[in-house]
Amino acid sequence: MKLLKWLSVTDRFYKIYLDKQLAPFGINSSQHMFLIKICRSPGILQDSLMDMFYVHPSNIVRTIAALEKQGMITRSPSTKDKRTCNLYPTDRALSVIDEVQAVCEKTEALLLQGINKADQELFLKLLTQAGKNITAELHIERTEEEFND
Amino acid sequence: MKLLKWLSVTDRFYKIYLDKQLAPFGINSSQHMFLIKICRSPGILQDSLMDMFYVHPSNIVRTIAALEKQGMITRSPSTKDKRTCNLYPTDRALSVIDEVQAVCEKTEALLLQGINKADQELFLKLLTQAGKNITAELHIERTEEEFND
Repeated sequence: MKLLKWLSVTDRFYKIYLDKQLAPFGINSSQHMFLIKICRSPGILQDSLMDMFYVHPSNIVRTIAALEKQGMITRSPSTKDKRTCNLYPTDRALSVIDEVQAVCEKTEALLLQGINKADQELFLKLLTQAGKNITAELHIERTEEEFND
Repeated sequence: MKLLKWLSVTDRFYKIYLDKQLAPFGINSSQHMFLIKICRSPGILQDSLMDMFYVHPSNIVRTIAALEKQGMITRSPSTKDKRTCNLYPTDRALSVIDEVQAVCEKTEALLLQGINKADQELFLKLLTQAGKNITAELHIERTEEEFND
């Protein structure tokens, strides 16, 4: 039962830590991944975020609405597919995104403290394998892009 | 950013899987750890669960109240310390706990599918290290018992 426990503890506490670190930027640990992706790929389709982060469509809608309300992104209906939107970062988002990314990298470095480089890589590989095992069991569809992300 | 992403995905989906598997027993993925502990240590003090699972006191109170309402546990004020309670499993809990534990073990086996025994042990060791790194950063107090759990 240690595996379930430590997955839960580690996930919960890195998010508490990240929330504290991200608070000055007006975003939280359920938004940073989306904001970084939108800043790095302006115009990205809202629907493509679903496959990328394995998130339920209703959660995407909620997170995107929150980021828009916070003045971090803008939406415009896709010309290719009217059922979805293109997402663009605002100047405000672009002005903080490097710092947001640095906070995420600092969080990862903190998690990996005291673990040598080879074990860090193996850890990530094994964690990814575990994640793919469980999403496959639940028949979650994945895109190639997601695998490379 | 892969580490944060896969911690989040793996934790989220094992809980979705576990919720489905635990539904027939009337409990969920935020309750199983407590129920197992109470069944294996009848009379355990409610306060000791806090240190064991790094859970906020208000969450413990909520989870214990839910398990009591579901007829899984009973509480009685501690004779040693009136501020806390001794927790006992009901016959109903004892009749399902082995199956609940088997479901948890099946979930762990699913996560670890395709990973050899040595890597499984290393994975757990590295994940535990990552969890301790982040809880130490947030100054979460831990007991020796917790470390051995």
